[in-house]
Amino acid sequence: MGSGRSTVYRANWVLPVVAPPFRDGAVLVDGSGLIAAVGHRAVIDPPEGAEVVEFGEAALLPGLVNVHSHLELAMFRGALEELSFRDWILRLVGGKRSVLEDGDYAAAARWTALEAIRAGMTTLATTEASGIGMAAMQEAGLRGIVYNEVFGPDPEQAEASVRGLQERLDGLRPHETELVRVGISPHAPYTVSDDLFRAAALLSREEEIPIAIHIAESAIERELVTRGEGDFAPGLRARGIATPVRGRSPVEMLDRLGALAARPLLIHCVDVDDEDIRRIADTDCAVAHCPVANAKLGHGLAPLAALLGAGVRVGLGTDSVASNNRLDLLEEARFAALLQRAAHRTPTLLSAPELLRLCTLDGARALGMEDRIGSLEPGKDADLCAVSLAAPHVKPIHDPVTALFHSARGTDVTFTAVRGRALYLNGMVSTIDAPAAERRMEEAAARLRELT
Amino acid sequence: MGSGRSTVYRANWVLPVVAPPFRDGAVLVDGSGLIAAVGHRAVIDPPEGAEVVEFGEAALLPGLVNVHSHLELAMFRGALEELSFRDWILRLVGGKRSVLEDGDYAAAARWTALEAIRAGMTTLATTEASGIGMAAMQEAGLRGIVYNEVFGPDPEQAEASVRGLQERLDGLRPHETELVRVGISPHAPYTVSDDLFRAAALLSREEEIPIAIHIAESAIERELVTRGEGDFAPGLRARGIATPVRGRSPVEMLDRLGALAARPLLIHCVDVDDEDIRRIADTDCAVAHCPVANAKLGHGLAPLAALLGAGVRVGLGTDSVASNNRLDLLEEARFAALLQRAAHRTPTLLSAPELLRLCTLDGARALGMEDRIGSLEPGKDADLCAVSLAAPHVKPIHDPVTALFHSARGTDVTFTAVRGRALYLNGMVSTIDAPAAERRMEEAAARLRELT
Repeated sequence: MGSGRSTVYRANWVLPVVAPPFRDGAVLVDGSGLIAAVGHRAVIDPPEGAEVVEFGEAALLPGLVNVHSHLELAMFRGALEELSFRDWILRLVGGKRSVLEDGDYAAAARWTALEAIRAGMTTLATTEASGIGMAAMQEAGLRGIVYNEVFGPDPEQAEASVRGLQERLDGLRPHETELVRVGISPHAPYTVSDDLFRAAALLSREEEIPIAIHIAESAIERELVTRGEGDFAPGLRARGIATPVRGRSPVEMLDRLGALAARPLLIHCVDVDDEDIRRIADTDCAVAHCPVANAKLGHGLAPLAALLGAGVRVGLGTDSVASNNRLDLLEEARFAALLQRAAHRTPTLLSAPELLRLCTLDGARALGMEDRIGSLEPGKDADLCAVSLAAPHVKPIHDPVTALFHSARGTDVTFTAVRGRALYLNGMVSTIDAPAAERRMEEAAARLRELT
Repeated sequence: MGSGRSTVYRANWVLPVVAPPFRDGAVLVDGSGLIAAVGHRAVIDPPEGAEVVEFGEAALLPGLVNVHSHLELAMFRGALEELSFRDWILRLVGGKRSVLEDGDYAAAARWTALEAIRAGMTTLATTEASGIGMAAMQEAGLRGIVYNEVFGPDPEQAEASVRGLQERLDGLRPHETELVRVGISPHAPYTVSDDLFRAAALLSREEEIPIAIHIAESAIERELVTRGEGDFAPGLRARGIATPVRGRSPVEMLDRLGALAARPLLIHCVDVDDEDIRRIADTDCAVAHCPVANAKLGHGLAPLAALLGAGVRVGLGTDSVASNNRLDLLEEARFAALLQRAAHRTPTLLSAPELLRLCTLDGARALGMEDRIGSLEPGKDADLCAVSLAAPHVKPIHDPVTALFHSARGTDVTFTAVRGRALYLNGMVSTIDAPAAERRMEEAAARLRELT
């Protein structure tokens, strides 16, 4: 970790998150990759032998925290448009089953990691079926949690599914590092039986493994859970799987199964009512808010303002490029604010400082990492990004945080570092062979195009 | 117009709008700035002496049409955040009154024009109080309509206001060109009396001057029109101006005053019901849809799908950077689609091809320019833009139109031309002195900051 020597990063604006933005700032990072000091550039003297990196007209802030993505799906960007949710899932699974293999997922995961780094992200939570993301995250130098997905709508499969998951975990957990942790993800109510949810939650609690669940995403998921009907039901019944009523709501179902007691990261939570929100708050679960994917797939608008108001730990997620088509947390935050303001007809919702918090410290809290990252404070890990505010589309700058979210964008990021290690600088990602990843990812994409 | 000699523009993707996108295309532009041919690059032979411009992995399409903006407000970008609509307007007007002068507006208009050109826009409709935009549009080489705003909530002022407007028009109309036309804009119900709306509509019809009106934007506008109450009422009454009930809705009020008969461009139309939409369709008025500004200021969500369904001519507008904070029609279109899909929980609304049409041919129709621009067809004016699809955040490309709207962005534009004249190429805008405009615009912005 770190570069072995101290570095002073300077920028016209520094945004510590836990303190107001200030001008002409500097962040001193020690040789072990920790933040040693944050302050005005005049008062932060570079120690002897320290490197000084000057960003000029830019904002220097904590690295962005993306609490929900699927690294392995890069080849699907723009391939699944204007489809119903069920068709979208079926095409995704169909494509994965018929023409993709591990090498494709590995290349896609590298490509997504590259894109995340270029867009200022330092921490990613990713859910995946392939078991390939951990190596890509480590190669890239990113921080995060790789949630291994487990599927099994048939209750009779539950034991075998958990055994398979255990085997994957046994293989992966020895490779855990301080930066990259392994988690589990019983996928969603339409792919996971009650028994499997119960068993996965138990595993999470007993072995202290982080757990994430796609929940309350779509109307058809609610129909399946609350009535045993809807678009997902006929396919399950055709496979001999019963579709009983499983709860008053998807969140209530998870509570009943003991899954909320594992304090999962609840992904989406579009379709939650006040009672659901109370349950989420009372059990101290976290929520991954993915406004673009929720909108683009036609699921609707998650009650972000209400979740935040209830004190729920909420982070922002881009979801995969298969649904979002972008991986840009600055845009995601802007869109979150615009959508809430339009829906509630309230121009004061989700101010720029709140967006900054959502993308950094709130995301860290959602992943249980707030002791190490999410703000610029001495003693925390030096996970940093710099965003240029010099482009014409950003000027003039009346306030750097407003400029960051409402005028700048992911492509204005100029620097990304995790625990003091520079991953992106001078337009280059230092850790990943971009042309090789691109070639293989494009080959996989071409095979997908031949399918249709 | 045009460069005097023919040019062949080539790109990996050509999007004619009126025909499906195709690969390895070319557009031949003749020496007078007209499109002479559109087709596969192999079949479009460059005439002798023709220049050949190769864009490679890019989409070549009609220039983007922004049907609502305020060129003169560049210095307010990010200066008016998290305010109620009334406070937003009061601060805007206060800033304008106290520290800005014509030279500031001229610089801001140039700065906005630069930004628009860099983002692929070739046509802009702008409303303005300063009378300064026409010169900036002409200097920039843009096409468009400059709607001169007229204000006067006091019915007794109506005659004087129209006289003042007439004088401005007398000064401006001799400078009209084939590319830049003069229009009028009685501003909005809370700043314009019934008599002034009537007189302006009459002027528009008699002299065949395009007319635009901010209408049905906010809840407080509706309260003023339908009940004579709400946030705007006390201020008017304090100035001795009566606040009678003026209509069942803002649109019904315009109809009653004969304003819809002038076929205005109706800006915003957030707060319109089915009856309003029927009136707009029956009178063949056009609508400027500004989803980002409508959301950011907390006005809500305009019924875009219903307006399009009723056959209304709808174009897309960014509004000013004082409300949007961006000038990016690709993002505006993506956001329009996401917002409609979230609100209607329908993933098939506003497909990428529909977004392409909305930003080009539909915008041209909204401004009555569809005979000259909005599609790539022989005989039309060569208003073009090229958008790079080569950046990592765009790959892979399964479909170029999806890639254009859901992955690319305004900053990926590499080329803009109006009637065959290249305004933007190789990262340079050829027509405007950018550093001079920036300097003066930043000075004005600094004066605004001192106000607060």
